[in-house]
Amino acid sequence: MNKLVNVAIAGATGAVGETLLAILAEREFPIGELHLLASERSAGEKIEYGARQIVVQNIADFDPSGIDIALFAAGGSVSRKYAAKFAAAGAVVIDNSSEFRRDEDVPLVVAEVNPGALRDRPRGIIANPNCSTMQLMVALAPIHRRAGIERINIATYQSVSGTGREAMDELGKQTADMLSFREIEPKIYPVQIAFNVIPHGGDFMENGYTSEEMKLVWETHRILGDDTIGVNATVVRVPVFYGHSEAVHIETRDKLTVAETRELLRAQPGLEVIDEHIDGGYPTPVTHASGKDPVYVGRIREVSHPRGLSLWVVADNIRKGAALNAVQLAELVVAERQ
Amino acid sequence: MNKLVNVAIAGATGAVGETLLAILAEREFPIGELHLLASERSAGEKIEYGARQIVVQNIADFDPSGIDIALFAAGGSVSRKYAAKFAAAGAVVIDNSSEFRRDEDVPLVVAEVNPGALRDRPRGIIANPNCSTMQLMVALAPIHRRAGIERINIATYQSVSGTGREAMDELGKQTADMLSFREIEPKIYPVQIAFNVIPHGGDFMENGYTSEEMKLVWETHRILGDDTIGVNATVVRVPVFYGHSEAVHIETRDKLTVAETRELLRAQPGLEVIDEHIDGGYPTPVTHASGKDPVYVGRIREVSHPRGLSLWVVADNIRKGAALNAVQLAELVVAERQ
Repeated sequence: MNKLVNVAIAGATGAVGETLLAILAEREFPIGELHLLASERSAGEKIEYGARQIVVQNIADFDPSGIDIALFAAGGSVSRKYAAKFAAAGAVVIDNSSEFRRDEDVPLVVAEVNPGALRDRPRGIIANPNCSTMQLMVALAPIHRRAGIERINIATYQSVSGTGREAMDELGKQTADMLSFREIEPKIYPVQIAFNVIPHGGDFMENGYTSEEMKLVWETHRILGDDTIGVNATVVRVPVFYGHSEAVHIETRDKLTVAETRELLRAQPGLEVIDEHIDGGYPTPVTHASGKDPVYVGRIREVSHPRGLSLWVVADNIRKGAALNAVQLAELVVAERQ
Repeated sequence: MNKLVNVAIAGATGAVGETLLAILAEREFPIGELHLLASERSAGEKIEYGARQIVVQNIADFDPSGIDIALFAAGGSVSRKYAAKFAAAGAVVIDNSSEFRRDEDVPLVVAEVNPGALRDRPRGIIANPNCSTMQLMVALAPIHRRAGIERINIATYQSVSGTGREAMDELGKQTADMLSFREIEPKIYPVQIAFNVIPHGGDFMENGYTSEEMKLVWETHRILGDDTIGVNATVVRVPVFYGHSEAVHIETRDKLTVAETRELLRAQPGLEVIDEHIDGGYPTPVTHASGKDPVYVGRIREVSHPRGLSLWVVADNIRKGAALNAVQLAELVVAERQ
């Protein structure tokens, strides 16, 4: 690989694609060629990247030869259709969809948690974890390393940007309609999201869980490398634009005090502890996470279980939950070749 | 007591007071005299009740003689100051504040769960539980009776009406300001509530929990009559006007299957099971709870724990969570005297 890296982004016009571009620029990623790809519908749009103006190309017609790193953020069906083609042409594919996350030949990597795993990628594809798992892993990995996590009970408060740009439009429009006493018509979500909460993410599975809940189970097992951890998740969509929050109750093998936990978490790269017992002394999507890189953790408490802890974990689901981690993985790939 | 009951309502002009009046009328409570009381600030306001127009009186000047039932919904300080005076004058006080909820001489009663407890009220006061405990108890009591609950991990999604009318105004105004790109100024909540979630209810305690979280612990122990239950709560305020939701993970002494649990819950008065694995096949504040009497439960799942269950519980916090239960307790008091 040259000093400069040829990059392709699939899904460049979406919410994650847009943030991928912003983060590549912010972090001064050593881009050589930059190809922005999307479906036929968006092909022809122009997007600025620094001084460059780039015309979006139809991914179906694109020849991936010469691409070093392909960042896929266009959903599972696009990844299913094109990722292998890019990998076969020599690119390292970093995929943001759930398509390959359970494939044993595709490493599932959180940059600060299990970066070593990305070196073993027989298919040339690296999977970016689901946004809610991502932030959970940054907060829990140091605890698991030190004290062994045996059980995780998690309830999420997921923002609509996790669903995509149309969902953000839906929240904005429904809210304005509500305030104007107009009728609401749910389209993206099955029921009204404005001034409501919806305990439903993804599709319902045989066991009554939703696919977004099961991702938290499967991905936690893979990333922490321990499938004995009991994970119970309830995934809930809330009327927030950016930033997922999580109420997390865990049980560890060895006892950890709040003070020990705080110290452990303070030492974890990518994690910021905001934990004062005062008004606003805890992270929220609006006050801390939205538009920011770190995962934030607060409300650290001991619970009734003799080896139990409660935590409140918040992060920008589009940044650390998706685009930022993908770029961090790209940086790790670049670093290993130099 | 005559066939007709003389009723006083303290806090008649607040969000709960208004709903108390609506529910008394809906349920055709056998009201004789009806006295509406509030602080000096609201005294003189006129409120309609059926064909009657009633002038709100200053509670400080009111003589409680002849009152049979006094419904207090004006906050802890008013209850602290006046409840004993009403009880001494012969009224049964049903108090919606947290003032007496931990007083061993004041029963804490959910009408469908532990109605027998209200007969033993040496102080003449009955406490109405906190809204989030209320709905949790209706859903968990039948499970506890059958299988013994050992642990409860709960994360709440509490609407702003639980804080009061000013909080509802704040959510409305902040939301409109956000949509108009105006500056937000939090007043009732410590940080912005519009398009945000806030992991903070009540005051911070020594142990890092908030008072709203500890109420879930203390009140659950009292109502279920079992202080060995481990309760771990995270209380979160969400931008919803009416209706509290709860993601609940429990562990029982005896194994219960999802089918057994559903059957148990279907037989519980005051509870409605909405649990289909389809779009909208679960309760939400807007689609089910707001303005309705029952507690709704759905998303019933077995979890990784060998005797674990997950539930999603939603109810109108102003109705079942406050006013409805208070009126149900008043009905029980009337029934015992006849």
